Amino acid sequence: MIKALIEKNRSYRKFVEEKISIDNLKKLIELAILSPSPRNLQALKFIISNDKEENNKIFEQLTWAGYITDWQGPKKGERPSAYISILADKNISNNFQKDFIYTASGIVAQSILLGAVEQKLGGCIIAAIKKNKLREVLNISDNLEILLVLAIGKPNEKIIIEDVKNNDIKYWRDENNTHYVPKRKIEELITGSW
Amino acid sequence: MIKALIEKNRSYRKFVEEKISIDNLKKLIELAILSPSPRNLQALKFIISNDKEENNKIFEQLTWAGYITDWQGPKKGERPSAYISILADKNISNNFQKDFIYTASGIVAQSILLGAVEQKLGGCIIAAIKKNKLREVLNISDNLEILLVLAIGKPNEKIIIEDVKNNDIKYWRDENNTHYVPKRKIEELITGSW
Repeated sequence: MIKALIEKNRSYRKFVEEKISIDNLKKLIELAILSPSPRNLQALKFIISNDKEENNKIFEQLTWAGYITDWQGPKKGERPSAYISILADKNISNNFQKDFIYTASGIVAQSILLGAVEQKLGGCIIAAIKKNKLREVLNISDNLEILLVLAIGKPNEKIIIEDVKNNDIKYWRDENNTHYVPKRKIEELITGSW
Repeated sequence: MIKALIEKNRSYRKFVEEKISIDNLKKLIELAILSPSPRNLQALKFIISNDKEENNKIFEQLTWAGYITDWQGPKKGERPSAYISILADKNISNNFQKDFIYTASGIVAQSILLGAVEQKLGGCIIAAIKKNKLREVLNISDNLEILLVLAIGKPNEKIIIEDVKNNDIKYWRDENNTHYVPKRKIEELITGSW
């Protein structure tokens, strides 16, 4: 069951633009709250947006699909319907240990996206962010460090997982815009003395 | 469904010691492989152990439950049956950007633990590791950076989630050794202009 959900949780970058309710987004944050938190500090904060105008402001600060160099991100009509920005509250994580904070952001990002998939949504974890600009447009206070932005919408994209060939892990698109994601094999990734 | 799984996925630190097969551990790594990977680099490697002797060596390098100061971790007979050490391969992530690497480790840790819960197992993400010593006992090569150790077993512990009171997020145990974990409320964590 969880495998099916994780498998369906691809990094979607094209969507059918349909409003997502704040209530449904809050349900995703509840999943984040229930997820492991380093030292249980719960130092993460979330800015949620389902508003067209605010979404546009966020969209402008994101870089999409670094390996698809001839594509500047989803065009109008194909964009995410919501964003969840993940921030670290430096008043709580006062040492701001990058390892702890970013581990925490990864944990909650996965919980949120798996919840989104269950809601028949999907999304993408975006780390390539114009952070100063995003701080400005979302009026983010200085004590909050921007970590990630999750783009969320109703996916409208075909994504196929394939084996890595010639050690090339770059995702790519064919002439029909099907998106291929090469994944390494387990034998390459695990060791042990068993 | 995913909520029930995330809710059941507590940070377990006491277990019934029962062998976990390498095959079942590999199934958890498959979940990690299918999870989002920053830039799709897939720079993480995994050392899996279900061997009593090797488990003991790993156990010695871990610090348990920082807030429970009168407890040195699970005693013999209550210890994890398996460990998955998560490492970053510096030959792949050659810049070793902490934010990317630790985000990646958090994503896969959550996938692995949710898979463990589905297998009626459970575990704990441990970041307080004597890394030099672990490198020695597991014979970890220099190109691999130790990020996290996941302790996995069949949980034997009662854990209750409660609201944070007086801003105190420290987990605690009562006289019956029930473990309480205060969680912040959603109102404290989200903002937005909706």
